[in-house]
Amino acid sequence: MEIAVTRNLLESNESVAAELKELFAHKGLLVLNLISSPGAGKTSLLERTLTDLRGEFRMAVIEGDLQTDNDARRVAATGAQAVQINTNGGCHLDSRMVRDHLAPFDLANLDILFIENVGNLVCPVEFDCGEDHKVALLSVAEGDDKPEKYPLLFNLAKVMVLNKVDLLPYVDFDVQRATRFARQLNAALGVFPVSCRSGEGLDPWYAWLRAERAAKKQA
Amino acid sequence: MEIAVTRNLLESNESVAAELKELFAHKGLLVLNLISSPGAGKTSLLERTLTDLRGEFRMAVIEGDLQTDNDARRVAATGAQAVQINTNGGCHLDSRMVRDHLAPFDLANLDILFIENVGNLVCPVEFDCGEDHKVALLSVAEGDDKPEKYPLLFNLAKVMVLNKVDLLPYVDFDVQRATRFARQLNAALGVFPVSCRSGEGLDPWYAWLRAERAAKKQA
Repeated sequence: MEIAVTRNLLESNESVAAELKELFAHKGLLVLNLISSPGAGKTSLLERTLTDLRGEFRMAVIEGDLQTDNDARRVAATGAQAVQINTNGGCHLDSRMVRDHLAPFDLANLDILFIENVGNLVCPVEFDCGEDHKVALLSVAEGDDKPEKYPLLFNLAKVMVLNKVDLLPYVDFDVQRATRFARQLNAALGVFPVSCRSGEGLDPWYAWLRAERAAKKQA
Repeated sequence: MEIAVTRNLLESNESVAAELKELFAHKGLLVLNLISSPGAGKTSLLERTLTDLRGEFRMAVIEGDLQTDNDARRVAATGAQAVQINTNGGCHLDSRMVRDHLAPFDLANLDILFIENVGNLVCPVEFDCGEDHKVALLSVAEGDDKPEKYPLLFNLAKVMVLNKVDLLPYVDFDVQRATRFARQLNAALGVFPVSCRSGEGLDPWYAWLRAERAAKKQA
């Protein structure tokens, strides 16, 4: 019974996600779904990206949180448009929530839409929100065993942003080991070691965004 | 429909949890449910505690993970008995899983049973596993806004272990601010700043375990 209900929820999520993909493709809009543990640095990555690339792309954000609009306010402070979804305790965003919060955006005049999911390494992975790609974030303070212990995200993500590398001297985290685990699950996974605090390592992430944006526009 | 099903799952979880509470009370066993984000340090806290207090208490662990028995092996290396539950992708432990994994333990000859939940700051909070108390762990690398953004755990936990304080010089984390947010939700919350890496700050946590264990034994 529980399994049947879960399957129905996922199926109905897939059908709305398919509608969204068609809409986003029609607009030539690149859509990225950012997924990580709480506190891995999704909002910090957005703050950097929205600031550094604002002369280059028209970007906006859907912010998912259980409670508060703290993150939407942080994002809005960069000048980008941000719409907050509060799940009221719900553990993930789904395609219906995204669809129901698109009205404030002028999609035809956007290049990249970021969806910042609820901080949770498990549940958000199962709900397609109509994105082109899932972006996994992992902080080096979380330990290099996380791709092995939480495999689904690293299996389905297109890239992994390895954040807080400025903390590497102070934690037991082996970048090679984390990368090896993640690529056992997903041989083509792009890996970007960065520090959103210092700004180190962001250029390859920006180059990836440019390439994905160009590919989407031409499609 | 979705809500009704969720309510039924929670109600059936509550009834098995009530059975477990009766069983644990009958044995005079203190049971603690450790909940945190992935990588906050639940297993490290257990490794320290099981090692430092092994002459004083008979302790065992139920390990919850999506995949792998890495954590059970880390715990077993301290000499404590550990039983692994793999949820195969499931985002939390529930009372039925705990009940179905008790057989290997000699409960009458244990003082403290730790349940290490799946790394997830959201879903595990809603499922009572028959424990006396929930123990929240928060790593200072996750940011001091987490009690405000993920309130339910900090509302329901008896204590918060604030781990990785050795990283405080390198991150933007205000211990006072995190404590204030958490105590707005839960005025009686005990807060233990510790570093499981250096061993700093563990004595008050051990004193709390002793007091809780003594109270449970007398009850």
